[in-house]
Amino acid sequence: MLGAIEAGGTKFVCAVGDDTGKIIERIQIPTTIPAETIVEVTEFFKQYPIRGIGVGSFGPIDVNRDSPTYGNITSTPKPGWRNYPFVQSLEDTFGVPIGFNTDVNAAALGEATYGAAKGLDSCLYITVGTGIGAGAMVHGKLLQGWSHPEMGHILVRRHPDDTYHGKCSYHHDCLEGLAAGPAIEERWGEKGVNLVGRPEVWEMEGYYLAQALMQYVLILSPKKIILGGGVMHQEQVLPSIYKHLKEFLNDYVTLPEMSEYIVRPGLGDNAGIIGALLLAQQAIEER
Amino acid sequence: MLGAIEAGGTKFVCAVGDDTGKIIERIQIPTTIPAETIVEVTEFFKQYPIRGIGVGSFGPIDVNRDSPTYGNITSTPKPGWRNYPFVQSLEDTFGVPIGFNTDVNAAALGEATYGAAKGLDSCLYITVGTGIGAGAMVHGKLLQGWSHPEMGHILVRRHPDDTYHGKCSYHHDCLEGLAAGPAIEERWGEKGVNLVGRPEVWEMEGYYLAQALMQYVLILSPKKIILGGGVMHQEQVLPSIYKHLKEFLNDYVTLPEMSEYIVRPGLGDNAGIIGALLLAQQAIEER
Repeated sequence: MLGAIEAGGTKFVCAVGDDTGKIIERIQIPTTIPAETIVEVTEFFKQYPIRGIGVGSFGPIDVNRDSPTYGNITSTPKPGWRNYPFVQSLEDTFGVPIGFNTDVNAAALGEATYGAAKGLDSCLYITVGTGIGAGAMVHGKLLQGWSHPEMGHILVRRHPDDTYHGKCSYHHDCLEGLAAGPAIEERWGEKGVNLVGRPEVWEMEGYYLAQALMQYVLILSPKKIILGGGVMHQEQVLPSIYKHLKEFLNDYVTLPEMSEYIVRPGLGDNAGIIGALLLAQQAIEER
Repeated sequence: MLGAIEAGGTKFVCAVGDDTGKIIERIQIPTTIPAETIVEVTEFFKQYPIRGIGVGSFGPIDVNRDSPTYGNITSTPKPGWRNYPFVQSLEDTFGVPIGFNTDVNAAALGEATYGAAKGLDSCLYITVGTGIGAGAMVHGKLLQGWSHPEMGHILVRRHPDDTYHGKCSYHHDCLEGLAAGPAIEERWGEKGVNLVGRPEVWEMEGYYLAQALMQYVLILSPKKIILGGGVMHQEQVLPSIYKHLKEFLNDYVTLPEMSEYIVRPGLGDNAGIIGALLLAQQAIEER
């Protein structure tokens, strides 16, 4: 049996499953401070004979195995989690191999193995929700270089009608600062779910996300792009992205049909937790 | 003996060398039409007992081995080269394995093997000259997904003082449209080499290139960034890039010291041709 943790900023999803990606049991735990959250995580997994645990975590995290702080959450503003030694703590408690990557890289792995990018050695998974993040599979491996990607914070050009300052505490009007859920809410004065009848909201959202996709396509050239997260549940966003991306690219690169190339997650909201199961499997194989 | 071609839009460099990256003989041929240029290429290589040829080519090119047009130059506006079957033509003439990639991917391979990124499995090579292009090594292989990257055409925010329209025929004010050599010349009315005493030129250039580097860092997280090409010969550009990139990133990601992380090519202007030699070697090994 394998353990999986999707560690998010507001909640942890913990699951046990098998090596075919099947989830057997799962729970959800609010993310408070490690002393509380990790105790509940531990109690859950102690019930099962797990051979390894995979973690897809909020970040930034240290994924460099040669680093003395490998396996830590690093510079998060979240109280108690800054420099939290996630991998070390789980290893000490369970004594099994621990896989560790970003939540979005885990989701990319899930989608590339069982979801919308099944069988491809290259894909990009983007989540647009309370934050914006992306993970990627490149040459059959989760993208990693100096560190993991931080694709949500790329710079974008402002929409001509947008006077909103932006919400990112580092870059104010980067992609996440202008297009994540909290930015939508602050700009328009209501949560996105209450803005369904306002086409200008989704026109602007598509404009920003299409710009991001243009950069991702020109820099990474993924074989498939998967868009998940709460904001993407708004049906109007995807067509707006297609429209703007076509305009921006202006036929400079030849891509597959938009509706085949840029798609919703094949695993729905389970991409991350199933990806974490796969990280557990990889950790066992690598030991 | 190995053959190497660095196929550029204005000139072809052809060389023969050995499997330690040593160039034994080289010539330069103007790029006119294939019927002329390729005849000279053929005459050069016919003098040597070559076991394979590596090509780093201007693009866009088809690098997908499963494609019926693999090995072709694709949508270039250059007369005679559109849909030119580069690999097929060399195979027919020489009957040896042909390696084929973009000029900038070849340069990235050269730098990762013998140059500034020696020994790293991840690096980014950017050239800023008559165009802007970049190649990358990711997980020890040249970056390729749906196709090769086209990083020179990403969108950038305009410098507040820049009223120049932009020179890219596809996107007018993308990175290449605002920051390649011809854009500098058209905006300021003189070639870059004659603008050494105008600091505002290089301040603006650094602003645009730093934006591009921010996107590349956040999306790819390379272990080393190498900046080559004619425009980079201007000593004032690199410090301007460092300054703006620090401002843009605002400490969001932890990087090595700028002067260690973003560097000039270790192989000088030979990165591309030495990379092409390595492509020849790879093609022989893969056969």
